[in-house]
Amino acid sequence: MATNLGPEKGYLRIATEEAFASTDLFPQYRKLFEQGDIKASDPGFGSLWGHYLFSESERAVAIRNKITDLDEMRIADMNATGIDIQVISLTSPGVQVFDAATANAVARDANDQLADAVKRHPDRFVGLAAAAPQDPQSAARELDRAVNELGLRGFILNSHTFGEYFSDQKFWPIFEACESLGVPVYLHPNTPPPGMIEPFKEVGLDGAVLGFGVETGLHLLRIITSGAFDRFPNLQIVVGHCGEALPFWMFRIDYMHAAMVKAGRHPQIKALRQKPSDYLKTNVYITTSGMSWEPVVQFVRDVVGADRVMYSMDYPYQFVAEEVDMYDNMSMRRDELKQFYQTNAERAFGFKAPSGE
Amino acid sequence: MATNLGPEKGYLRIATEEAFASTDLFPQYRKLFEQGDIKASDPGFGSLWGHYLFSESERAVAIRNKITDLDEMRIADMNATGIDIQVISLTSPGVQVFDAATANAVARDANDQLADAVKRHPDRFVGLAAAAPQDPQSAARELDRAVNELGLRGFILNSHTFGEYFSDQKFWPIFEACESLGVPVYLHPNTPPPGMIEPFKEVGLDGAVLGFGVETGLHLLRIITSGAFDRFPNLQIVVGHCGEALPFWMFRIDYMHAAMVKAGRHPQIKALRQKPSDYLKTNVYITTSGMSWEPVVQFVRDVVGADRVMYSMDYPYQFVAEEVDMYDNMSMRRDELKQFYQTNAERAFGFKAPSGE
Repeated sequence: MATNLGPEKGYLRIATEEAFASTDLFPQYRKLFEQGDIKASDPGFGSLWGHYLFSESERAVAIRNKITDLDEMRIADMNATGIDIQVISLTSPGVQVFDAATANAVARDANDQLADAVKRHPDRFVGLAAAAPQDPQSAARELDRAVNELGLRGFILNSHTFGEYFSDQKFWPIFEACESLGVPVYLHPNTPPPGMIEPFKEVGLDGAVLGFGVETGLHLLRIITSGAFDRFPNLQIVVGHCGEALPFWMFRIDYMHAAMVKAGRHPQIKALRQKPSDYLKTNVYITTSGMSWEPVVQFVRDVVGADRVMYSMDYPYQFVAEEVDMYDNMSMRRDELKQFYQTNAERAFGFKAPSGE
Repeated sequence: MATNLGPEKGYLRIATEEAFASTDLFPQYRKLFEQGDIKASDPGFGSLWGHYLFSESERAVAIRNKITDLDEMRIADMNATGIDIQVISLTSPGVQVFDAATANAVARDANDQLADAVKRHPDRFVGLAAAAPQDPQSAARELDRAVNELGLRGFILNSHTFGEYFSDQKFWPIFEACESLGVPVYLHPNTPPPGMIEPFKEVGLDGAVLGFGVETGLHLLRIITSGAFDRFPNLQIVVGHCGEALPFWMFRIDYMHAAMVKAGRHPQIKALRQKPSDYLKTNVYITTSGMSWEPVVQFVRDVVGADRVMYSMDYPYQFVAEEVDMYDNMSMRRDELKQFYQTNAERAFGFKAPSGE
């Protein structure tokens, strides 16, 4: 296994979609189940956390143990799998299932805990901030605090919030804050909302096996077609799982979007400054979480550009000791590997790896 | 433009996902709108056919004209775009929005009309049969008639039927009939059902731009994880749009499916004889409808095998005169082009192109 840490190998391995749970998060999630209506009001959350909070399966127990640790266990796992640096964020759906007051409080506390962990392990951890879309103005203020006072380097958005998406302009104060602060939005999967989930959930396909990707790809396309990147041209969104299938669909999306604009078919589909797919090359970074398979990684690098694709593992959900060996041995030059593992992440999140050159 | 027809170029161009509307279909669709409740009971159908039946946009008018023709206009368009043979099927959602009696009658009539057109133009047309999933036993009988008496070469399934999928064993008499008759199921897109469509439709993304692909990819994955291919190992399903993104997701689907089986997370997710992605290589053919973009076509050929990927245009929805030029000039040897354009289709649908070798 490739457990060689440090810059001697020519690059640092930075994993960019890594999860933690703050001390408040699981107790607050359990409260939602104890109140008894969460499985009806949010079947996706009920399916996902009804499993991971309560299952005694080996996988669920391991995830509960690993995800709450920000010290020895996590660093030992990083050392064992060759990860120099984790970019860490609050696990999905974060605070996006709470009332606004709870969401604000849990987000603030999670940001404090994560910033403290980064201070304890400045060479190993970079943190992204949680904030409550339920309250966009407070979220914008919390992001300012998290970046300027705590040193966090982005905003983690766990896809929909009560079935609403950032294509809705009411959320745009958060985009405005991120653009102004010079930090990206990490658009992370969530289970599909009640208005989408049933045909997935009834056969067990609502989670990472398919539903996550569909929900998150839809969210990103909604943001693109809303014109958000024309309004905030310097906004950068990071998206995992090799782009949640949008790189696969690029040609068809462009063709059908243009046809709909021409036919005036839907009031929400309007002309944009660029083709929809162009925004993947100018305003989106793509990470490889859960997709450690060279054909798809190379396909995405080919079609959106190697300067837009970077590594992530999705720890602890995807914790595969041999994973970086596959990546180390991809058909890439050393400088391309450095771009993929290190410099794209440094540029996307605006930090300099402590032991990098 | 590549308008050279005939075998002299080294292959025949067979387009495999081409649509027609029988004389009864649009009048019956209009009835659904006149009855007034279709937009509420099936918002996807309301969105799609509310546009194409009634819009005076250039695109909608052209599609209404072309799709109802099975003679001179269609053949002139084929000649103008270099298509030697069309594999034709009833346009989506076919009969799958009617009550069972109407569906059976419209399907039977459509099959008669299509078989007559094939008899008039035996060198240019191959037909697939419509049948009503609302009545699986009658559908199986109609498929027997369509194949053995009319000479049609497959079953067109326009994805969900009132929100139900062929992962449900109640539909498996139709799979059994297709396997027994030695003809494939063409799994064609439909708009997402009421339980999925809202987050797509509210922003105009429910159609070909994204919703079609999501709905159809989900349907195929539901069929795979249901164990249908273990029950009917010789069943072949043809799917368009370069595989509706399942080739992109192959690695992650396999990984998460195995993790769910191991954790016993969902009763519908069970061990299969093969990995989910293996069925794409043994029981699925993939066509390129609407995806005339070399990077994605080559990616799919690489990951599922060149013997599983074949050409389709999606006439008249995608009617791009220059399209076959792109395909003719892909980085493929002549024998690979023949496989892609001709012999894979001949094998999948079980016919021999009349003017082929």
